[in-house]
Amino acid sequence: MRTLISRTLVPVFLLLLWPPQPARGQEIADAYREVANRIIDAATGDHDAYARLTELVERFGPRISGSAALERAIDWMVVEMEADGFDNVHTERVMVPHWVRGEESLEMILPWPRDLPMLGLGFSVATPPGGIRGEVLVVNSFEELEARADDAQGRIVLFNVPFTTYGQTVQYRSRGAVAAAQAGAVASLIRSVTPYSQQTPHTGNSSYEDGVPRIPHAAITVEDADLLQRMQERGQRVELHLRMEAQTLPDVPGRNVMAEIRGREFPDEVVVFGGHIDSWDVGQGAMDDAGGVVAAWEAIRIMKELGLQPRRTIRAVGWTSEEQGRTGGREYVTEHEDEYHVLAMESDGGVFKPSGFGFTGSDEAFAMIQEIGTLLERIESGTVTRGGGGADISPLMATGVPGMGLSVDGTKYFWYHHSDADTVDKLDPDEVALCVATMAVMAYVVADMPDRLPR
Amino acid sequence: MRTLISRTLVPVFLLLLWPPQPARGQEIADAYREVANRIIDAATGDHDAYARLTELVERFGPRISGSAALERAIDWMVVEMEADGFDNVHTERVMVPHWVRGEESLEMILPWPRDLPMLGLGFSVATPPGGIRGEVLVVNSFEELEARADDAQGRIVLFNVPFTTYGQTVQYRSRGAVAAAQAGAVASLIRSVTPYSQQTPHTGNSSYEDGVPRIPHAAITVEDADLLQRMQERGQRVELHLRMEAQTLPDVPGRNVMAEIRGREFPDEVVVFGGHIDSWDVGQGAMDDAGGVVAAWEAIRIMKELGLQPRRTIRAVGWTSEEQGRTGGREYVTEHEDEYHVLAMESDGGVFKPSGFGFTGSDEAFAMIQEIGTLLERIESGTVTRGGGGADISPLMATGVPGMGLSVDGTKYFWYHHSDADTVDKLDPDEVALCVATMAVMAYVVADMPDRLPR
Repeated sequence: MRTLISRTLVPVFLLLLWPPQPARGQEIADAYREVANRIIDAATGDHDAYARLTELVERFGPRISGSAALERAIDWMVVEMEADGFDNVHTERVMVPHWVRGEESLEMILPWPRDLPMLGLGFSVATPPGGIRGEVLVVNSFEELEARADDAQGRIVLFNVPFTTYGQTVQYRSRGAVAAAQAGAVASLIRSVTPYSQQTPHTGNSSYEDGVPRIPHAAITVEDADLLQRMQERGQRVELHLRMEAQTLPDVPGRNVMAEIRGREFPDEVVVFGGHIDSWDVGQGAMDDAGGVVAAWEAIRIMKELGLQPRRTIRAVGWTSEEQGRTGGREYVTEHEDEYHVLAMESDGGVFKPSGFGFTGSDEAFAMIQEIGTLLERIESGTVTRGGGGADISPLMATGVPGMGLSVDGTKYFWYHHSDADTVDKLDPDEVALCVATMAVMAYVVADMPDRLPR
Repeated sequence: MRTLISRTLVPVFLLLLWPPQPARGQEIADAYREVANRIIDAATGDHDAYARLTELVERFGPRISGSAALERAIDWMVVEMEADGFDNVHTERVMVPHWVRGEESLEMILPWPRDLPMLGLGFSVATPPGGIRGEVLVVNSFEELEARADDAQGRIVLFNVPFTTYGQTVQYRSRGAVAAAQAGAVASLIRSVTPYSQQTPHTGNSSYEDGVPRIPHAAITVEDADLLQRMQERGQRVELHLRMEAQTLPDVPGRNVMAEIRGREFPDEVVVFGGHIDSWDVGQGAMDDAGGVVAAWEAIRIMKELGLQPRRTIRAVGWTSEEQGRTGGREYVTEHEDEYHVLAMESDGGVFKPSGFGFTGSDEAFAMIQEIGTLLERIESGTVTRGGGGADISPLMATGVPGMGLSVDGTKYFWYHHSDADTVDKLDPDEVALCVATMAVMAYVVADMPDRLPR
């Protein structure tokens, strides 16, 4: 009985306070609550985003910079975006790197024969036509390699460095070939940058330095890196035969692709969001990063479906060649320097369950973004933290534009990252829809609110 | 103070009851509690079993029936077992199947080029030298294939059947080539038999039937099976090019390998346990099934170390060619028909965290085994359930010998099973030690207890 009374009385007390006095800093959230809910309902009511993502990643194959498959996917996007009825659907030319893998293999000759799953790393040179055959030296760090430089002469060096954070471990992918060559090695291998493996090699970018010999550089699996290390510790001689045909061809024209809803009051003020449309040449690049592109694209499709035209322009972009030098993101800045960008937003951590955003900008802007975030509490994706952005929008952010990146449950992102296992089946249609809703609400409110987001 | 009193008083009360009256059916457990604890302490006090397992699987490569690597691993075991000081270390000749994979590849030609990770299935025939190029028909069951038999003519049939239980799903691996050929297909593919994939193909045995054309039969990954199905649903024409050099050569001599602690009273009464020493030709066969072999081997090593010589003989065996027809297990029965086998025990589900055993035998024997199981409660591996055995000991069990299989946490077993990802790093050294302890206590007590385990 007591429970019953309290249940009925509480709403009555609340009604006496209605309409609520706008709390300090809640004006925006209150003004946009109803439309935010409509956007969320529309985005989460079906699996259209997942279906579109599946089409994008499966119709043409992986979309590495410079490939025909990437350009075909962009052509298809233009047709689809036109059919969606967006404004200003177009592409913008960007010269992009053109690295091609070619045939490659890694064979263990000693102590017993085995084909090792491997992936050459981006920008690696080829081996000589007959390949490189050599004894392996396994090291666990750059420091150990320096200490054992005498042993590295003429060897194939393997950096067997377990995954800690991506930022730490990826150093061996980025700089391994240089360090190995400086120590006199003839080729460089890394343990794939991942915390989990089912004999899965992971590719990714790498670099050379002027004045240091350019030696082939490839990734092997976690399992094999440990195997080779134990063989070395056991005193077994390990000999490998590496063959790679990789080559870096001259840059070719590529394209950023975009569509927008033109602002009804301030069309030259732009909220831009998206991800990168290029991927690696393995798997499908479903989470890295077709998901980011589709999340923004679907966000504006839903606004259009709901008849929403914000005060400012909202633009969804697929930037090109993020994986191989971010030329798309850089070119975008040059191409759009006459516009005023209010906010740049990116998703490039996989369209898993979203929790909110990481934001980079002024304190005043941060407070407003946090307030808009409260509109997403209903779907648990409204937490805005300090610091965040993305590789594609970083050139824009460098010009002073506030930037933010979608935060998601990244538990398994690096299980799949840059590997043949980055496929759409690893993503959950409901979670993809939540990413769309989260990006859409944030972008729409920032584009429509009376006050411009301050810098 | 109250806590202090109860803490001190409880032991006093217990001491008043000492020594406990043997409960009905607890005589065996009580008599062996002390020695069981010593065995458990010895097995779990170090990671020797894991180290030995690592050596076994990494020194010579995967151990497929008929391979030099398998025979080298057996030679090494004999040397190590002799060094351990066991009785009657020897091998027994068995003729075994000799299927060799050769080179193989599967290329998607349409709608876009891709090399599909694949593994030919055991006993599959080769393709013609130039391979088989054909359009794909994806079906989800034998029934659907029958219903669409007209469409299957001249096609490459893909059975895209998601993993439910191994027993159900493996039917498509075992019988797929026959069903596809009966429908007029030119080659047969299956979705790998696994609940989880990182583009990981899984091999395994398959069969043909007299009077049905023998067509090549291979496994592709979960991801690609779904991809091809969606392409078909989308109306995209899927063309594949399958090349396989697989061949079944004449049977060759192989060996079962074994060592024992000879019984001090009834040497001709035998408790036999172990696993199969052969594996597939990919990965390391660490959980399938070097772990089972090493668990039994380490179990008798620990008994020896503790100076335990049971009344009956305990024999640890590595049976050969389980994966390709169980010839090792069958030959063992013929070879040992003059002995009385008290109990046969096997581990072939991976040496993950053990929970107990599944037992097949009389009610009276089951009650005794359950009682012995109570000695394992301390390490949570004493649950004995009805029904269980193993592929290698099934021929022995067919002669009336009670049999049992080690029960483990099999959550991830089929993630790795018959794939390149069945490697020792997936196993936990502490869990391997628990398997050794569990097998050792059970085997020792059954071999030593005054009464023979009844049939």
